[in-house]
Parts: sequence; C-alpha cells; structure tokens
Amino acid sequence: MRVHLDCIPCFQRQALDAARFITDDEKMHENIIRAVIAELQGMDWKKSPPEIAHVVHKIIRDESGVEDPYKDVKKYYNDITLKMYPELKKTVNNSATPLLTAVRLAIAGNVIDFGAKSDFDLNETISLVLKKDFKIYHFSEFVRSLEKANNILYLADNAGEIVFDRILLETIFKEYNVEKTLFALKGAPIINDATYEDAKYVGINNLKGLEFIKVGVGIPGTGIERTSNEFQDVILKSDIVISKGQGNYEALSELRGIFFLLMAKCPVIAEDLGVKVGDIILKGG
Amino acid sequence: MRVHLDCIPCFQRQALDAARFITDDEKMHENIIRAVIAELQGMDWKKSPPEIAHVVHKIIRDESGVEDPYKDVKKYYNDITLKMYPELKKTVNNSATPLLTAVRLAIAGNVIDFGAKSDFDLNETISLVLKKDFKIYHFSEFVRSLEKANNILYLADNAGEIVFDRILLETIFKEYNVEKTLFALKGAPIINDATYEDAKYVGINNLKGLEFIKVGVGIPGTGIERTSNEFQDVILKSDIVISKGQGNYEALSELRGIFFLLMAKCPVIAEDLGVKVGDIILKGG
Repeated sequence: MRVHLDCIPCFQRQALDAARFITDDEKMHENIIRAVIAELQGMDWKKSPPEIAHVVHKIIRDESGVEDPYKDVKKYYNDITLKMYPELKKTVNNSATPLLTAVRLAIAGNVIDFGAKSDFDLNETISLVLKKDFKIYHFSEFVRSLEKANNILYLADNAGEIVFDRILLETIFKEYNVEKTLFALKGAPIINDATYEDAKYVGINNLKGLEFIKVGVGIPGTGIERTSNEFQDVILKSDIVISKGQGNYEALSELRGIFFLLMAKCPVIAEDLGVKVGDIILKGG
Repeated sequence: MRVHLDCIPCFQRQALDAARFITDDEKMHENIIRAVIAELQGMDWKKSPPEIAHVVHKIIRDESGVEDPYKDVKKYYNDITLKMYPELKKTVNNSATPLLTAVRLAIAGNVIDFGAKSDFDLNETISLVLKKDFKIYHFSEFVRSLEKANNILYLADNAGEIVFDRILLETIFKEYNVEKTLFALKGAPIINDATYEDAKYVGINNLKGLEFIKVGVGIPGTGIERTSNEFQDVILKSDIVISKGQGNYEALSELRGIFFLLMAKCPVIAEDLGVKVGDIILKGG
C-alpha cells in the first residue's frame, strides 16, 4: 500500500506523541516536529507508510538521542495485558468457538497501536470486538488453512497486543497439529511495535516449536525488510501466514496467501479495505 | 491563544480537505500540501491559530487559483439549516426557557466547522446539545448582561451556523430591549466561515437594528483584524459581546468581557478551556 496524503500530517501527530513520551520540554517537541516536517518536505511520497515511518522515527531518535521513546508505554501494556491473561484465557476456554474467540481477542488487542492513535480504551474495545460483526470474514478459509498447516508464520504487531497473540497461538496449538511457528518481530524499536524483549517478557518464547525472526525497520542489521525478496521467500515457505495490524497490512497488502487480522484504525486503511474506521477484519487472499 | 504543536499537522489536514473540495486531481492535492508544509516549515509558530490559518488558506488559493474552496459546502449548509429554521423556531418557542434553548441551538450549530473536522452529524449534534450539561455555564451572567444591554456585538463563525445565530438573536430581541446589533462576519472567504453573502442569504440582514462589521482574514482591505486595537475599541463600546466558535475564541480568549459560545471540537481548545472534546461552553469573563 502506498502512502496517502492523509498520512503526511498523521506522521507528524505520531512524531509529536513520541516527542511527548521522551520529554516535557516543548522546545524539544518543536525541534522534533520541525525536523520531521523538513524531512517529509524533501521526500518522495511514493512509498509505503512503514517506510516513511522508519525515516520519521529515525529523525526522532537522532534529534532526541533517545533510542526507544515508547519503552515505558510498551512495558505498561505488556504488564496490564499479562494481568488480563488468565481472564482472557477463561473467555477463550469457556467459548463455544474458542478459535474464533481467540481471533476476536487478537484483533481487539490490535487497538494498542500508538502509530494509529494514542487515545484508545482497551477494555471497551475487548467487550466490543467480542460481539462485533466482521466486515471482512474469511474465517472458514482460515480454518481450512490451519487444518493443512504444519508451520505458521505469525507477523506480530505491538507490545501488549502480543499477549493476545500468545493466546491465539496457544488456542491454535491446542486444536491443530502445527509443528513449527516462526514469530516475526521488529529487529529494533519502532513506535510501540513488539520486539524480542517484549515477546520474552510475555512468555511467547516458551511456546513449543516457536522460533523468532527479525523484521527490519529500515536500518541495516535490524532484520529482513518485509518488502525484500528474502521475506517473500519466508512467506512462500509458510503453510499459513497470519499478519497482525495496520503496519503489516500496509507493507504486505499486495501479496497473496496472507491472513490479515486487524482493526481498521485510520481512514486511509479503512478506505483501502473498503470498510469503516473501527471495523474488524479477517482477510485471506 | 497561541498555536499548539498539535495545530501544525491539523492545518495540513485542513488544507487537504480544502484541496479535495477544489479538485479530484491528486497531483494538485499533493502540490497544495507540499506548499503548505514548506510555508509552515519556514514560519514562526508563535501566532494564534487563525493567523496561521490565514497564511495556510492564502497558499491554497494561490496554488489552486480558487478563491473560495468552501463555496459549495457553505451554500449546502445555509440551505439545509434554512430548511430546519421553522422546526428550530418551534423548538425555541415551545421551550420553557426559550433563551437557553436558543443558546443551546447556537452552540449545536457551531459543529458545522470544516476548520475543526469534516465528519460531523448536525442532526445528532442538535439532539445531543439540547440535553447536554454545559461544562462551563455562565448563563446567569449572560442574562444579567443582556438585561442591561442596549447594543450587542455578535461575532459569527460559520455558514449554516448563522441560521442558528439568527434564531438566538431573534429570541434575544423578543425578550430584551436591544436597540443595536453589530454582526461581525469575515470580510473575505476563509474556510467555511460566514461572510456577508451568507448572512444575506439566510436573512440576517432583515433583523431590526442590525448592522454588519467586517473582520479581516489577514489580507489588507478585508476588514478589521480581531487582534487590532481598532477591534478592541469595538469590543469596549459594546454592552455585551457574544462570540461564536473556536476561531473567535482562539483570537480573543485573552480579552475580558466576552461571552464565548462554542463546542470544544479539538483537543487543543478543550485543553485550553479545561474541558473535553465534545463539551459545550457558555463562558463569560
């Protein structure tokens, strides 16, 4: 997906959020916004939103000297979702359709996204998404793919949200014969995206047959870029690909054979999917 | 009120809205956004939001050659609010507290503001605001001022909304002995702000004892700038000043003796007033 013009001001809003996580110093906030604007101004916008996000967040790091502005907020959401874990497990186990309930929860958890916006209500979203109608609903295709799958590629999105991903994977492992799972995480901090540290913190590393793969964030050495041929090979070798969130959709929406689980949180993504902001999606293809 | 950093991306969103009113040509949209960004980049941000809006909308006019991008949308809202006029008058006349109901309607009409955001629901807002609690409520001071007033300065905000202003003024004229009203409108098109053409279109020019005054939009010859000493003199000579909407609040919030009627439609205004987005305000001072 290419960047829309609406994304240009939105990146600046995102940068301002990040700047405020870093410091209360308004002069520094202004410096960061001005540097981001200068960079956007000189940039070709025929890129995908994650590619521009990489540039924007590099500027924030360079201007502030802070490597991971979202460090505290990531820990905060890992902690509160870990506390919710037993209750969420109960919800899945008591459900007449545990897999579908786990899918719904995994989508609800996707609201913890400081890329899209910073004013969300996790508990309200969970209640809502457990009952909400899907706007794109390829659940039976999803089930058929799982039935035939020996291995999964699971593209995670945000810290905190990965507790919900853990529950979805545990539910899948209980119901289907999956031998190997490749859990894809960002290879370095970017917005509040989950990294290996988050996965370890919430216990995903203990899941049977699970290995990690690092996704690059536009910096050499951070992992395989989602847009690379190497990553396409990883996708092709996977029996089923589960992709969480807007960022992965933006980077990979043109590829086939991926199940996208997400909540449409911005008008640009909603329009691309032909749905409304707030709608929930399980899209195969 | 000085501009906040949050306003910087918001001006670009506003420019994109305007660009889309002008043309479907995405290349032109991009040209406009890039020109706006370049200007914002080079600008000192220690101004009030309306001052920056004047610059931003001048760029849009210069880039597109279109003098009034909001022309159609202003007519549209003048037309639908004129159609609502008889029903709204009934609501006021049947109310146990006609003045308060007219104030509430005048605030509800303030949602027609393409500066703040373009996705609003007028009918829903009216139902809501007729019942909603005020977050700042200086109604008794407002009534006391009206009781003593021979003349009113009324600062209008948007096209369409001015039908609601007409109803408020008619209600005031029925209950109080006001001899003269100075109705302040923008002296040239800016966003969907009301101009003399709109006031005439909705019949405000027929109100007894009413005269018009033009408020400048940053272009010489368009009227008296709200921040000028000349305008302060106009305010001082008025027995009561009724100011509608965010833009007038942003320009005049530091002055005393003004009743601000508005709905807080963006986080920056809400924070300045100590309220939440969506809250309604009748603030004297």
